[in-house]
Formats: sequence, structure tokens, C-alpha cells
Amino acid sequence: MRQPQSLTDCSLALHTDEYALTMAQSFWRHGQTGVACFEMTVRSLPPSRGYLVAAGLEQALAYLLSLRYGARDLEFLSQRGIYSAEFLSVLEGLRFTGDVDAIPEGTPIGAEVPLLRVTAPRIEATVVESSLLALMNHQTMIASKASRIVAAAEGREVWDFSLRRLQGPEAALGVARAAYIAGCAGTATVAAGARLGLPTTGTMAHHFVLAFGEDHEQDAFEQFLRDYPGRAVLLVDTYDTLRGVDRAIAASRATRVSLAGVRLDSGDIAVLARLTREKLDAAGFTSARITASGDLDEYSIDSLLAAGAPLDAFGVGTMLGTSADAPTMGGIYKLVAQARGAEMVPTMKVSSAKQTDPGLHQVFHTESHDVIALAEETLPGEPLMQPVVRGGAVCAELPSLAEIRERCRVRVAALPVEVRRIHEPQPWPVVRSARLEELRDRLLREGGHRTGVKVA
Amino acid sequence: MRQPQSLTDCSLALHTDEYALTMAQSFWRHGQTGVACFEMTVRSLPPSRGYLVAAGLEQALAYLLSLRYGARDLEFLSQRGIYSAEFLSVLEGLRFTGDVDAIPEGTPIGAEVPLLRVTAPRIEATVVESSLLALMNHQTMIASKASRIVAAAEGREVWDFSLRRLQGPEAALGVARAAYIAGCAGTATVAAGARLGLPTTGTMAHHFVLAFGEDHEQDAFEQFLRDYPGRAVLLVDTYDTLRGVDRAIAASRATRVSLAGVRLDSGDIAVLARLTREKLDAAGFTSARITASGDLDEYSIDSLLAAGAPLDAFGVGTMLGTSADAPTMGGIYKLVAQARGAEMVPTMKVSSAKQTDPGLHQVFHTESHDVIALAEETLPGEPLMQPVVRGGAVCAELPSLAEIRERCRVRVAALPVEVRRIHEPQPWPVVRSARLEELRDRLLREGGHRTGVKVA
Repeated sequence: MRQPQSLTDCSLALHTDEYALTMAQSFWRHGQTGVACFEMTVRSLPPSRGYLVAAGLEQALAYLLSLRYGARDLEFLSQRGIYSAEFLSVLEGLRFTGDVDAIPEGTPIGAEVPLLRVTAPRIEATVVESSLLALMNHQTMIASKASRIVAAAEGREVWDFSLRRLQGPEAALGVARAAYIAGCAGTATVAAGARLGLPTTGTMAHHFVLAFGEDHEQDAFEQFLRDYPGRAVLLVDTYDTLRGVDRAIAASRATRVSLAGVRLDSGDIAVLARLTREKLDAAGFTSARITASGDLDEYSIDSLLAAGAPLDAFGVGTMLGTSADAPTMGGIYKLVAQARGAEMVPTMKVSSAKQTDPGLHQVFHTESHDVIALAEETLPGEPLMQPVVRGGAVCAELPSLAEIRERCRVRVAALPVEVRRIHEPQPWPVVRSARLEELRDRLLREGGHRTGVKVA
Repeated sequence: MRQPQSLTDCSLALHTDEYALTMAQSFWRHGQTGVACFEMTVRSLPPSRGYLVAAGLEQALAYLLSLRYGARDLEFLSQRGIYSAEFLSVLEGLRFTGDVDAIPEGTPIGAEVPLLRVTAPRIEATVVESSLLALMNHQTMIASKASRIVAAAEGREVWDFSLRRLQGPEAALGVARAAYIAGCAGTATVAAGARLGLPTTGTMAHHFVLAFGEDHEQDAFEQFLRDYPGRAVLLVDTYDTLRGVDRAIAASRATRVSLAGVRLDSGDIAVLARLTREKLDAAGFTSARITASGDLDEYSIDSLLAAGAPLDAFGVGTMLGTSADAPTMGGIYKLVAQARGAEMVPTMKVSSAKQTDPGLHQVFHTESHDVIALAEETLPGEPLMQPVVRGGAVCAELPSLAEIRERCRVRVAALPVEVRRIHEPQPWPVVRSARLEELRDRLLREGGHRTGVKVA
């Protein structure tokens, strides 16, 4: 069984909100260590999103299964003065021993659906909340944005160029992975190639051309062509873009090295792309590709292609890597049930506007909508939540990145066009089963208190 | 001399865009290894920002000075099939040997100002671009946002609660550090306490209360008060907020443990805060504090305080940690000069709308504006760019986080009120010196080519 892969070699044990540890200590001290069940859901779709693409599960599992409090972590906690030596030794021995059920990565989903469920001794389920959410929120946010950009590119390659604009360099691996799941061709981030085997790419920067000084743009191009025969993509807008194209053609002829392509990074890309294509074709460089970059997103790519810009590939940085129009994913991790003796009792938070669905859930996918149901229900459609971890060990074959990407491609393509469209998409419909509605209503009437209803 | 502190134990050597390595190899192969000079600048202020707060320099320096290509990195690069064994051995031995000048962290700045300059052998200066930018862009973005939130809170504590909504868990350390620089009281992220010594805090989650089942909210409060005497902040909105306040009071009385405070996380916070304060005061709990949380930002905090909400502290998550209204910082890293023999020749990119300032720069700060000048100029005002690394070693005492935070406090307070205000702030004015304008104009006329003007 393949083990889930982390994107970091560093410990994330203390990457938690402090309350998780103080609550865990209180639970432990008072013997409140029975099984609790938490589900992660995204309450509402961000603006301009008809669906989300579930992503990040493999890293969430890697985090859970590798969680260890090391000597330095415990030393720091000890100095905080609020944790007892006994509790710290509990943390020292803590391993995730619980179960995880989840919707497979690459699945398009709507709001309020459980992406993931953790069923574990309460202390374990408590301490993992913050990093689990950060890992899932991040990749789901990026995959959801990237899916739109890939759709706008209509089959042309989209490459992740975002590293320099992220929340620190470490975020680049999650971005590259999620973007690839959603259909991007790959990334410029070398570490994502090294760690995840993703395709990587690179063109050249303006400073490469400037390094050659006055009137030596063609020298720069010739050197790069000779150094990277068959793969050099020349950046032509350092001085004058169309003169740059002429020089790229001349450099290819002078070196007898074929020109893989050129990159346009500024100016009126639609006009420049057309004129560049004409120049390349007139020179017989019909296989040379044109890549566009520079603050692109799904809207500008859509406009460029609608204007007939003959572009072959897009390098998308900021807008992809930060999901700039919807830069947060509001995934929450809520207690849905807890053990009372031998039974699991559903629970919910009833406070205004932040109500949660009580009980353990299954999601049934149909062609027109998804249904959130109680876990023990059997309804028409395909059940999306699958067991992935049992007793702290992976219990199902983890899909490869290629399989996740293909799943995403097929399932996004099957969504109604109004859900998939770039402009003002309709939200993918999600409804609740009659039994779930009934349980919700009853608990709301009773103030969110225990019902004794056995739900699993 | 204190060495700069990294926020990660993991290598960032491959956290680079691929073109940096392919360009570096080309430079190396052709002996283009002379000194090059790059400056990082932010081209324009994001919407709703009157100024930026420079942050991230210490981690940028730690990255530069610890950069090493390890065996695994080189093995991966070797498998790429585009790097020669000779170049990989160059990378293996590569150490940053150059100079860094920078504006000190915590300094409020305007657009187009150089935050940082790297002067180094061209290969070194080339390979560090992506991660250097990611580190600086991230913390500068967060400090700039946090500064506004802190201003809105008018002296009340602002705490970073953002971990779960970030671009992966690792981003939390940079957020916490930058937020603290900008005046936040601390963070909920435990790792930021462990690594940076930042104050950490935590209250409780709804699931702590739910763990006690029906009608046992007061039991939950009593247990938490007993477990954390003097520091327990009770979350009162799991069921009914005002009933929760009554129960918090009752729990404090029953346990004879003083109530540090309560947290309001939903509902009409302005109204609830007033009613909560009345209840607390009526019960004699005048020192119990009220913390608000739940999708807060500078605008909602400003509104709450304008409405007279008696709040003592704010837990700010998503909007702080992602700078959600301006979630990207467009810092760029541009070649400004390069060695030709014994002289440094200024250079600039002239392509439309993305022109850069040629030459090495100093920034002179005055009470009413900043002036970007050539490095050899002496103008009225305080020069902001300072030498921090010479020959690959730290050459100036690095300020402590407390000193950086104090610098930020004093200098932000000295900005004109129209630059500091929350709503529609005026941009902090930045102008160019006459000599810089002259050089820019000349290079633009000459198409960005070398001039032979000696600038340093």
C-alpha cells in the first residue's frame, strides 16, 4: 500500500492553534477521551465558483499519519507553563489511531458537502484541526481556481508560474500539485518536479537579455538556443516585442537550432500574438509556439481566445497561485457526532448563521445534483465518501496524481455547462436527504442537544 | 553578530523557477559571471493601501546565507537531462558571497521604492530570485494589512487567528511574524511561539462545549476555568450567546476562579458586546474582557468601535492572514546595473508599462515624502537603504523583533493621517530625484541600452 506523501520534511506538530492543545489537555485530564467525529465542509462557494475541486487529501493523510511531538516541541510546550508533565508525555506518545473517510481528490463538489471525516479518540481529533484545514483549504482553493483557468484555455497548456507571489516559498508545492490535478500542464517550480514528479518548465527572464547589453538581444537568443536546443522559449519583449520576434527568427537561423517558441509578457497580447504568429509563419516557423504571461487569469485568457489570439500556452502566476479573486477557502472542521457508551450521538452547533449538519454523512452524486445524507442511508447515485484510513493506517489504494487529474478532467467535463462556465456560473446543486433534514430540524428544536438517535 | 533566523528547517534550494537554473547554467558556460545588481521593488500600492510595511528581510537573508544544493537536489537536477555535470558541481559549491542593502524591516514605504538590493556574482543573484521574492512579498503583504487592522483597533489587542485559512500550514510563521511587526499582540499559532518567541493565545472551540452534551455548557466552562485559572477565555455562542454569558458568570462563581474573558464569534457583535458587558459589569466582573472574532477586518473593527461596542480584543483570521482584499504583493526583482570591467553600468527594461528604474538607488525619507535617488547622491532626509550583508556575511546588527515592531509603531504614527486612514487612504508620496529622472529619460531615449554612465 503506497503511503501518503507529505510536501514538507519539517514537523508540523506545533502548527496548531493553541486552543487545540489546551482543550486536549482538559479532555485528557477529565477522561473525555472517547471517540469523536469531525467533518470538514466548505460552508458556501466563493464568488464566481460554480463548484470546488476537492484536493489536498493525500497531504492531509500524510500529516495525520506522521504526526509526532518531538523533543523540541515538548520542551517548548513545557516552558509555556500551562501543560503538565503527564500531558506532555501523552503528547509524546500520541499517534493518529483513528479513521478517515473522504471524497476522493479531483472530485468536483458543491458547498456544504463533507470533504473529509475524522473519527478518532477525541484528543487526536482535536489536535489535528488547524493544519488539516490549512492543507485541505489550500489545495482545494487552488484546484478550484485552476480548473476555471484550464477551462478558459480550451485545451491549450496552462503552466503555474506563481512561486514568487505566494505566502512564502513552501506554498509552491501545494499550488503546483493542486493546479496539476485541475489540468495544468505543470509548473515552473523545480521543487515540485523533484518532490512530486510534476512536469516543469522555464523560459527566460528579461535580465538574461539585458545581460548582453546594447543591441545584443539576438546574441542572447543565440546563446540560449545553443544551450537548450529544441526547448528554448525566448522572451521577446525586453526592448521592442516585434523586433524581438525578428531577432528570435534570425537567431534560430544563425544557429540552425529550431525555435521551440517565444513568450509575450507585456503589451497588447492579442495584437502582438497575431503579429508574432504572422512573422513566425512567414519565416516558416510554423511549429514555434507562442506562450503568453503577465497577470493572466481565466477572464483575460477567455478574452484573448475570443479575440482570436493565436496562443499555444499560458504561464499563469499570481491569479492562479493566490486564487486572487477568491483568496480564501472557508473550510471548517466541526464536531458532528460523539460516542456515548456504545452509540454515536449526533451533535450540531446551532448558533446563528453558523449551524452545522449533525451526524455522520454520505454524499450521493447524481447527474444533476449531489445529496448530503446520513451515513447509514442508501440513496440513488454514487456514494462519494470513501474509507481511506482505518485504525491509523491507510486502508485503500491511494490514487496517483495522474489518476486524480484524470478523475478531475472526466468529472468536471460531466458537470452542466452553466456550472462550468467562466462568467457567473450557477452553483452545483446540493440538497439534503429527508432524514438529514428531519434530524437537523429536531436538533434545532431541541437546541442542538443530544438526541440519543443512533446514527452509526 | 546575531545570524538571521529562518522560519523553516527545510531546504529551499529547489524552490525556484526553473528558468533561474537554466539561465544560470548559460551564464556560467559562457563566463558571464561578473557582478550584477538587482533591486526588489513593489510597482504600485495595492487597492486601499496608503503605505506598505517592509517585512521579511531577516528570512530573506537567512535564505541567502544558508542556500545549499544538497545531494538530493543535485540528483534530481541531474535527472532533468539539461544540466551538465560541471554546472551541477558549480551549484554544489555555490554559496552566497555577495552584498545586500535593504530598507529596515518595520519601515513604512510607498510604491516603486527599492526594498532590497542584491549585488553579487551573476549566477548567485540569478538563482535566488523566486524564493527571495516569495519571502519578502509575503511578509510585506501581511505587515501592510495588519498595520491597518491594528490602526482600526485603536490600541486594543489584535491576535492572529489565521492558520487554518492560509496557503498551507507553513505560511503561518511568516504571517505571525509580520502581523507582530505591524503591532498585533501575538498569534494563536503555537509554532510561532516556539520558533520566534511570539506571544501565543487560545480560547476554546465550540466542540469543547458540545463535548459535554445537553445543558452542560456551564460544566464545560467550569472545567476550563479550573484547568486554566486566570487565563480561560470562554466561548459563549455555542447555543445562545447571552445565556452563555450568564453561564460563564455562574461557572466563575461556582468555581471561584476569576473569569479572564469571553469570546463572541457570531451574531450581531456590536449588540451582543454591549449586552455582554452589561451582564459582566452587573455581576461585578468588570475586569473580564470581551474578545470578538469571526471574519473581522479593519472595516468591521472600525464599524464595531464606531458603534461603541465595548470590545477589548480581536481575533482576526482569514482577512489578516490572506490580506483578503489585496491578496497579492507584486514585488519584482529587476536588474538595475551590471559590471563592465571595473564599472557598474546602469540598465533598465523599457518594454511598455513595465519600465524599471536604472542604476543603484538610495531612498531619502522626509516628513512629507520619500525620494528615490541614485545611490551616490546625497539629498536632504534620512537615507533608508542600509548595508546588511557584505561578502556573504551579515555586516550590521540585526534588530530584534521587538525593535522592528517599535520602529514600525513610531514611523507609522508619524505618517500623515490621510495616508494612515482606513477608508480611501492617500498614497504615501514617492518622487524621483532629478538625476534619476535624467538617467531614466536618457536610457529610454537610447532604448534601455548601456550608457557607460558610472553609477557606483
